Amino acid sequence: MEISVGQLADFLQAEVIGDRSVIVRNVRGVEEAEAGDLTFVVDEKYVALLERSKASAVLVRADLEVTCKIPQIRVKDPREALRRLVAAFAPPPITYAPGVHPTAIVAEDAVLGKNVSVQPYAVVEAGVTIGDDVVIGAHCYIGHYTTIGEGSFLYPRVTIRERVVIGKRVIIHPGVVIGADGFGYEQVNGKYEKIPQVGTVVIEDDVEIGANTTIDRARFDKTIVRRGTKIDNLVMIAHNCEVGEDTILCGQVGLSGSAKVGNHVIMAGQSGMVGHIKIHDNIIIGAQCGVTKELVKPGFYIGSPATPHMTYKKRESIVVRLPEIYKRLVALEKEVEELTGRKSGGKESEG
Amino acid sequence: MEISVGQLADFLQAEVIGDRSVIVRNVRGVEEAEAGDLTFVVDEKYVALLERSKASAVLVRADLEVTCKIPQIRVKDPREALRRLVAAFAPPPITYAPGVHPTAIVAEDAVLGKNVSVQPYAVVEAGVTIGDDVVIGAHCYIGHYTTIGEGSFLYPRVTIRERVVIGKRVIIHPGVVIGADGFGYEQVNGKYEKIPQVGTVVIEDDVEIGANTTIDRARFDKTIVRRGTKIDNLVMIAHNCEVGEDTILCGQVGLSGSAKVGNHVIMAGQSGMVGHIKIHDNIIIGAQCGVTKELVKPGFYIGSPATPHMTYKKRESIVVRLPEIYKRLVALEKEVEELTGRKSGGKESEG
Amino acid sequence: MEISVGQLADFLQAEVIGDRSVIVRNVRGVEEAEAGDLTFVVDEKYVALLERSKASAVLVRADLEVTCKIPQIRVKDPREALRRLVAAFAPPPITYAPGVHPTAIVAEDAVLGKNVSVQPYAVVEAGVTIGDDVVIGAHCYIGHYTTIGEGSFLYPRVTIRERVVIGKRVIIHPGVVIGADGFGYEQVNGKYEKIPQVGTVVIEDDVEIGANTTIDRARFDKTIVRRGTKIDNLVMIAHNCEVGEDTILCGQVGLSGSAKVGNHVIMAGQSGMVGHIKIHDNIIIGAQCGVTKELVKPGFYIGSPATPHMTYKKRESIVVRLPEIYKRLVALEKEVEELTGRKSGGKESEG
Repeated sequence: MEISVGQLADFLQAEVIGDRSVIVRNVRGVEEAEAGDLTFVVDEKYVALLERSKASAVLVRADLEVTCKIPQIRVKDPREALRRLVAAFAPPPITYAPGVHPTAIVAEDAVLGKNVSVQPYAVVEAGVTIGDDVVIGAHCYIGHYTTIGEGSFLYPRVTIRERVVIGKRVIIHPGVVIGADGFGYEQVNGKYEKIPQVGTVVIEDDVEIGANTTIDRARFDKTIVRRGTKIDNLVMIAHNCEVGEDTILCGQVGLSGSAKVGNHVIMAGQSGMVGHIKIHDNIIIGAQCGVTKELVKPGFYIGSPATPHMTYKKRESIVVRLPEIYKRLVALEKEVEELTGRKSGGKESEG
Repeated sequence: MEISVGQLADFLQAEVIGDRSVIVRNVRGVEEAEAGDLTFVVDEKYVALLERSKASAVLVRADLEVTCKIPQIRVKDPREALRRLVAAFAPPPITYAPGVHPTAIVAEDAVLGKNVSVQPYAVVEAGVTIGDDVVIGAHCYIGHYTTIGEGSFLYPRVTIRERVVIGKRVIIHPGVVIGADGFGYEQVNGKYEKIPQVGTVVIEDDVEIGANTTIDRARFDKTIVRRGTKIDNLVMIAHNCEVGEDTILCGQVGLSGSAKVGNHVIMAGQSGMVGHIKIHDNIIIGAQCGVTKELVKPGFYIGSPATPHMTYKKRESIVVRLPEIYKRLVALEKEVEELTGRKSGGKESEG
Repeated sequence: MEISVGQLADFLQAEVIGDRSVIVRNVRGVEEAEAGDLTFVVDEKYVALLERSKASAVLVRADLEVTCKIPQIRVKDPREALRRLVAAFAPPPITYAPGVHPTAIVAEDAVLGKNVSVQPYAVVEAGVTIGDDVVIGAHCYIGHYTTIGEGSFLYPRVTIRERVVIGKRVIIHPGVVIGADGFGYEQVNGKYEKIPQVGTVVIEDDVEIGANTTIDRARFDKTIVRRGTKIDNLVMIAHNCEVGEDTILCGQVGLSGSAKVGNHVIMAGQSGMVGHIKIHDNIIIGAQCGVTKELVKPGFYIGSPATPHMTYKKRESIVVRLPEIYKRLVALEKEVEELTGRKSGGKESEG
C-alpha cells in the first residue's frame, strides 16, 4: 500500500492530529518502524516509545493522551482498525475454487463435503472423509480412513497418513507430516527391532501447524493436540504426546515420546522435553530450555535442566562473577595462611 | 479394540487371575495407563508400580509373583503376547499393491524388481535400480542412478537425489531428503563460492529414517549410515558423516560435516556434534548435549560441552548452591577481616 | 575415480616428487584422509599434519617446502587443481533439459524466460514470472505472482507460496518452504486468534537454501535474506527477519520473529536467537549458542545466553573446578572457625 494519513483516516472515519498528507507504505511496531511506516499504540506503556520511533504516522487509541511530532490517527480500537486496513489495502488472500482438479486422485469411496477444493496432484486414499469447505492443496497426500473436519485448510504438500483425525478449521502449512510411525524399538541381541505403531493422531479444532513440523502416530491409542493450540515450524511431536488447549509451541520445539503439555503453556523456540513427564497448565518455557522433570507450578522456567526463572537468574548472577569470586577465595586463603602461620590447603594461587 | 480379559486370555491360551469380564480398549505402560487400559509387566522392577497403576488389567510374566486388584493375564513372554494381540486386534496395516500406477513416471531404463509398487505421481529417473518388494510412495522422487535394495519401503513424498545407494529393508518416512548438496563453500574475496559436492550417500540395510530428516551427500566419497541404525524425525546428517551400526539418533539431532558416530551409540533429542570428530562405540549422549571433542570411553555424557554424566552432576550440584556458597564466602571474608583487623579484598558484601 | 598419481600429474601438467604409479580413488582433507586418498595442502600450517596423514598422495602448493613419504603432485594452486580434477573425473552433474514437462501445470498467464525447465508434476500458479535458465524441479509448487530470477535452480519438491521474490542464481534444495504464514496470534479471552500475515519474502541473488529449511512470510512488509547468504538444512527463519549479505546459517539454526542478522555473520549449528534483536556484522555465533541480546562488537560468542568467547571460557574454567573450589572454601571455614574459636556459618562440611 501507499496511502496518505488522510485517506486512512477517512476510511476509518477517524480524527487526525497532524499532517493529513503524510504518505505511509507499511505497518510496523513502534520500535521497528522506519520512515514511511504507520505504527500503532494500543497500550499506555508504549506511548513513551513513540518519541524515539522512526515511524511516519501512528494509529493511537483515542482515550490515550499522546503528544508526538508525527500525525496521529485516533481510533477506539487500533487493533481492530489495523485489521480493517489490512483487509482493505493488503493484496487479497489467495483462494482456491471448490472442485476436484482433474489431476487429483480421489478414491471412489472417499466422502467429500460441500465446497471442497482438491488441488492438482493431491492424492486422497480410500475411506477418507473430508468436511465442507476444506481445501486440500497441491501435492497433498491424505492416507486411508483419515478424516478432516469442515473449514480446514491444507496448504500444498501436506502428508497425512492413515486413520488420522483432523478437526475443524485446522490450518496445516506445507511440508507437515502427521501420523508417521513413532520412534519405538526393542533391543533383541544388540539389534533394534521395530515396535509396530498401531495408534493414530488426533488434531482437534482450531489448531494451526507450521511448515515442516512432524507429529508422529502413537504406539497404541493416540497422539493428541487439543483445541486452539498453535504450533510453529519444524516442531517435533513424538508418539503418544498429549498437548493441551490454547498452547503455543514455537519453532524447533521437540517433545519426546509420551510427553504431556498442559493448557495455556508456551514453549519458546528450540526448547525440548524428555518423555513420560508433564508440563502443567499456565507454564512458560524459555528458549532452548530442556525440561527433564514434571513442572507443576505456573511460572516461567529457563535453562537446561528447566529451573524457575528467578532461581536461575540468581544463580547465573553468581556464575558470571566466578572468576572474581575465585580470586577472592584465593586472597582469603593467603590471609588465613598468614594468620595461622602455616601452609593453606589451596594448591594454586590463580585460575 | 474393545475386548474382555477373558477373550484376550483365550486368544493367548493364558491363565487369568481375577475378573474375566473386564473390558479393555487400549494398551499403555504401567505408569501411563488409565481406566480401560491393558498394561504389561515384563520385569520384576515394575511389579511395585502396578499398585498405583490405573490400568484395568495387566499382562504379567508368568513366573513373577504379583498380587494386584486388577485381573492378571499370565503369559510366558508378555512382549510376544502383546505383538500377537496387536497383530490380531489392531487395524490391519495399510498395504500398497504391486504395480506402477499409471500416473507414476518411471524412466525407460530404470530396472524394477518383482512386486515393486510405484504409487501415484512418483518420479523415477533414468538409471535407477529398485529391488524386489519395494514400495515407492506417492510423490516420491528417485534421482538418476540411485539404487534401492529389496524390501525397502518409502512412504509418500520422499526425495532421493542422484547416485544414492539405499540398502535392503530400509524404511523412509515422508519428507525425508537424501543426497542434497553438502554445505560447503570457499571464501573468495569475502564472498562464498560453492564447492561442488560430487560424493554420494550410502544407507545400509535395516536403517529407518524419520519424517523430514535430511542426509546430505559427501563432498567427495560418501556420507554413510550403517546397518540397523534408527534415525528419528527432523535429524540433520551433514556431508561426509559416518554413522555406525545399531545406533539411535533421536529427534532433531544434528551432526556437522565429517562427524563420525560409532556403533551402539544413542544420541538423545536435540543433541548435536561439531564436525571432524568421533563419538566412539557404546556411548550415550544426553538430550541437548553438545559434543565438541572426540569421546572415546563408553558411558553417558551430558551438557554442552559434553561431559561425563557423574562429573557433570557433581559440578551442577555445586552450581545450584552458588548463591548460598557465595554468602558463606562473604561471611568468611568478614570474619577474616575482623581477625586481621584490616579491610578485606572483597569489594562488595552481597551478590 | 581410480587413477594413478602419474595420470593426475599429466592431466594437471604438474611435477611429481615420488612414486607416479600410486593409485588414488578419493579426495579427503589431510586429517581425514585414509589409504587410497589424495589429499591437498594449500597452506603452510597444514604441512606439519602431512606426516601423520594416512593419505596415499598429496597435491601441494608448489612454493611450499614439503618432505613426506607419499608422492607429491606440485601445483601452483591446489584448490584450482582440485576443481579441475573434479570436473574431469567426477561423475557428470545431473542436468534437466529445457522445456515444460507435459505433466507440469503452468498457469496460462505465467511468464517463462528462455531455457526454463519445468519438471514433472510441478505446479506454477497464475501471475508467476520465471527468468531465463531456471530449473523448477519435480513436485515443486510456485505460488501466485511469485517471481524467480534467472539462473535459479529449484530441486524437486520446493514449495514457495504467493508473492515471494526469488533472486538470480538462487539454489533451493528439496523440502524447502518459503512464504508460509508467520507465527503471529493475538490473545482474545484466553484464545489465540490468527493475525493475518500479509507481507512476503524476498530472497536476493546468489543465496543457497538447504533441505527442509523454512522461511516465513512477514506480517506486513517482508522477510528478507540478502545477497550471497548461505543457509543449511532445517533452518527456521521466522516472519519479518532480516538476514544480511554473505552470512552463513548452519544446520538447525533458528531465528525468531523480526530478528536481524548482519553481513558476514556465521551462526553455527543449532544456535538460535530471540526476536526483535540484531546480531551485527562480522560476528560468529557458536554451536547451540542462544542469542538473547543485541550483539554489536565483532567476535566469537558462545553459550546460552551468548557471551564473548574469552569471557565464557574463563568462567567455565572455574565452573569445572567448582567441586574442588568448594572443598577449599569448606577447609577455610574450618581454619577460620579454629582461629576465632567459635562455630562458623557454614551448615554443611561436604558437598
